[in-house]
Amino acid sequence: MKKQNLFSNIPESFPKEIFETLLENTNFKLERILSCGQSTSGGKWYDQEKDEWVVLLKGKAGLRFENESEIIELTPGDHLVIPAHNKHRVEWTDQTQKTVWLTLHY
Amino acid sequence: MKKQNLFSNIPESFPKEIFETLLENTNFKLERILSCGQSTSGGKWYDQEKDEWVVLLKGKAGLRFENESEIIELTPGDHLVIPAHNKHRVEWTDQTQKTVWLTLHY
Repeated sequence: MKKQNLFSNIPESFPKEIFETLLENTNFKLERILSCGQSTSGGKWYDQEKDEWVVLLKGKAGLRFENESEIIELTPGDHLVIPAHNKHRVEWTDQTQKTVWLTLHY
Repeated sequence: MKKQNLFSNIPESFPKEIFETLLENTNFKLERILSCGQSTSGGKWYDQEKDEWVVLLKGKAGLRFENESEIIELTPGDHLVIPAHNKHRVEWTDQTQKTVWLTLHY
């Protein structure tokens, strides 16, 4: 068996968030996402066909849901389910360190 | 949306490993596992019907596969796929801190 590491192969800097598929079949997709200060473009919302489980493993981020007034701050270990079509956006990610996310779309 | 944390709700000590289902449907099961020094009983092997993706998030552990001579040491962020029926055992987990695993059975 060959191991890999979620905190390895992280570029020094990157202009756009990096999405990498770790595992995918007809039922789900497991992805690593890297951020370094990026956020969802102004006024845009993610509106996804599938449910998503997301965990933040390193760094920090602020998630906003269309139907909620407060931004949810995520720190390492924080995880939640985002039901399909629950509009949300990444309001901010840490600019001082890399943020590593793991997401499961199902 | 309500967030939870993978590194919260960890008992001070526990005699057996703790398995908690985070998410489950007909296609997969996502689980958090907590260890504090436990290992697979002597001579026993896990022989699973499904493929498993596993990541170690905190602590340390040693995984042994029946068809390999060396123990694979896992540190935070290390992940690998264990194909169905690939016999393996947890040779050891860190006795000085809690070990937190995340596994996806699919």
